Amino acid sequence: MPLIVQKYGGTSVGDAERISDVARRVVETRKAGNDVVVVVSAMGQTTDDLIALATHVSSRPSGRELDMLLTAGERISMALLAMAIRDLGVEAASLTGSQAGILTDSAHGEAKITAIRGDRVRQYLDDGMVVIVAGFQGVDPESRDVTTLGRGGSDATAVAMAAALEADVCEIYTDVDGVFTADPRLVGTARKLDEVSYEDMLELAAAGAGVLMARSVEFARRFGIPVHVRSSFHDGQGTWIKEDAMEQTVITGVAHDTSEAKVTVHGVPDQPGIAAKLFGALAAEAIDVDMIVQNVSTAGHTDISFTVPVEHLEKAREAADRVAPELEANGVDVDPDIAKVSLVGAGMRNHPGVAADMFRVLSEHSINISMISTSAIRISCVIEAARCDEAVQALHDYYLPAEAAT
Amino acid sequence: MPLIVQKYGGTSVGDAERISDVARRVVETRKAGNDVVVVVSAMGQTTDDLIALATHVSSRPSGRELDMLLTAGERISMALLAMAIRDLGVEAASLTGSQAGILTDSAHGEAKITAIRGDRVRQYLDDGMVVIVAGFQGVDPESRDVTTLGRGGSDATAVAMAAALEADVCEIYTDVDGVFTADPRLVGTARKLDEVSYEDMLELAAAGAGVLMARSVEFARRFGIPVHVRSSFHDGQGTWIKEDAMEQTVITGVAHDTSEAKVTVHGVPDQPGIAAKLFGALAAEAIDVDMIVQNVSTAGHTDISFTVPVEHLEKAREAADRVAPELEANGVDVDPDIAKVSLVGAGMRNHPGVAADMFRVLSEHSINISMISTSAIRISCVIEAARCDEAVQALHDYYLPAEAAT
Repeated sequence: MPLIVQKYGGTSVGDAERISDVARRVVETRKAGNDVVVVVSAMGQTTDDLIALATHVSSRPSGRELDMLLTAGERISMALLAMAIRDLGVEAASLTGSQAGILTDSAHGEAKITAIRGDRVRQYLDDGMVVIVAGFQGVDPESRDVTTLGRGGSDATAVAMAAALEADVCEIYTDVDGVFTADPRLVGTARKLDEVSYEDMLELAAAGAGVLMARSVEFARRFGIPVHVRSSFHDGQGTWIKEDAMEQTVITGVAHDTSEAKVTVHGVPDQPGIAAKLFGALAAEAIDVDMIVQNVSTAGHTDISFTVPVEHLEKAREAADRVAPELEANGVDVDPDIAKVSLVGAGMRNHPGVAADMFRVLSEHSINISMISTSAIRISCVIEAARCDEAVQALHDYYLPAEAAT
Repeated sequence: MPLIVQKYGGTSVGDAERISDVARRVVETRKAGNDVVVVVSAMGQTTDDLIALATHVSSRPSGRELDMLLTAGERISMALLAMAIRDLGVEAASLTGSQAGILTDSAHGEAKITAIRGDRVRQYLDDGMVVIVAGFQGVDPESRDVTTLGRGGSDATAVAMAAALEADVCEIYTDVDGVFTADPRLVGTARKLDEVSYEDMLELAAAGAGVLMARSVEFARRFGIPVHVRSSFHDGQGTWIKEDAMEQTVITGVAHDTSEAKVTVHGVPDQPGIAAKLFGALAAEAIDVDMIVQNVSTAGHTDISFTVPVEHLEKAREAADRVAPELEANGVDVDPDIAKVSLVGAGMRNHPGVAADMFRVLSEHSINISMISTSAIRISCVIEAARCDEAVQALHDYYLPAEAAT
């Protein structure tokens, strides 16, 4: 019997009505002759509400206890979903991350899955049940404490569970129709992709396409699990993420990300070891650095710019200020009002002119580029946040014009 | 180091402020040189809110899944309390019922504690931590499913944990000052008891004194754990429940209970086997029967009356109606508007006139008695619900007059 892992996010199980809708869909999938494992997030605002409570009782909540607290969220949604499914005449049982054998390291709040012991899930499947698994959570086998997986954790649970159970497909249900050539809220002509390769999806995710995080895509690629990103509101096909998408287009999509901020360290001597000291200091504070650009040296001095998540900006500024004297830097500037726009496409490898075209399109719109970074299949430019929408629209019009729609 | 088990109910941890208050009290107890294990209930309305959600998604929620759902409640309160305690500079860790080794049978929703494996709690205590344990929940070691203990379950957790850890005292924090000679909301002259024996407390609990349920008192008695019922709002002494209360008064208190309803089966033949058939049918439906009275036989026929929790009344009526033809009964009557008033006191054993006095006091107030049941240290009368307050006041005035207060 084919095995399908389905993942439903917080919006899809936002209230009792929606949980009943999800139950009906799960039962349809089961009655169509599939084994079904369902991974659920916490209902809508639950996680935010719990975090608000934690900050009320503690100025700096313990990571262990915060994980204990937050894992109550999926416990509620998974039990309700199991009840709703049983009400439709199909046997179902819910399992916590720990019960489902999701083992992690000990990094509370951002744990990594280290192994999945799928025997209890398999036993329940063999008994003819639909199995509901809590997303976002696991257990550290050393301390026996519960852990949470951090952002995108429920997707990671679903893909990892699909890999462990050798599922035929992992379906990610979401509030959008799939993966688009650009954010359809910005670009009216953006269209849904029927297929996208793991490789392109990885770059899209890293470039800010919010539908699926890179960690889940990486996992799916490593274990060859086809992922189907689709809407929880209708039955239409979404986007399939898999090896060797049928057509290798030059540009798969335009992604943007306004969640980063830029830090510039001015006038550092152009000497070996400077970058190592600066980024060593940032790494010690667990600050995620994305893009790094070092300017051409002028009179033996240079500027180093980098981007960080906007919520890490203060920590990053403090760290840079702290090492600035040691680096003999002239000063540290920060700019939170930036956007990163990216072109992604595996076909880019064989089309060397893409970068030049991208810079020209932006320049025709008088949009200034302050940082550039490229990979083999992606080009990203940092621009003013205020010009982000215009840049995304212009690039989509140029590379993915509406006429090309099939 | 002395070991104290403290239990805080839903009202005591009703919001973030109150959780911080509880944290301060726990820290004071710890700093006074005690090891502390804290058992918590779910916050205020959480359990009711979760049950409402369950009834939204399912007409008949699965017991396993309802337990999975409800156990999210204590998870939230215990994690918040642990955070709040750590914020005050004392190491603390929360444990679910399963993690704390609370093993139960498999009766979802009303599981019985079968054993406690206290090694993880002991390890944490040895490490110098305050341990927070989820009340009301455990795990069935056969199925590895979580269970809940039903009404009064958190008190049972606390007393059982105190027994397993050989604690010096089990403190039950509540929103009243202790155990009273009658409900102080009904009787202005009711006074707090400084001490009460396990035996008297068992009868008071069974007779409707809501402060502590009989199952917890039984457990405390069996393992000789002194229980201190006290207010979570101030530091004053409450009521100590223990072996051999100092003075063995004739009447310890007047209890009342308006949560039951009466069922009468009329005109059944006065033959062996009738009661067995009737109460067998009720037991098969898991209906809790409290008092049973069979009238004197008239012309070979008799009436059988019994009381059940008012929420079981419909089921009880249906069961009685179903077996009535087989019993050759004339009919079945129900009365939800009853109250049970009880006198409790171990000294009653040596004072045979107590029952007669009780009936006289009620008759002086023209209060009609419809059922009577007695144990060695308790007399209970069923009367009209509307006369309950007056009956309690009259009995308290007679047996426990204000002048006798010390």
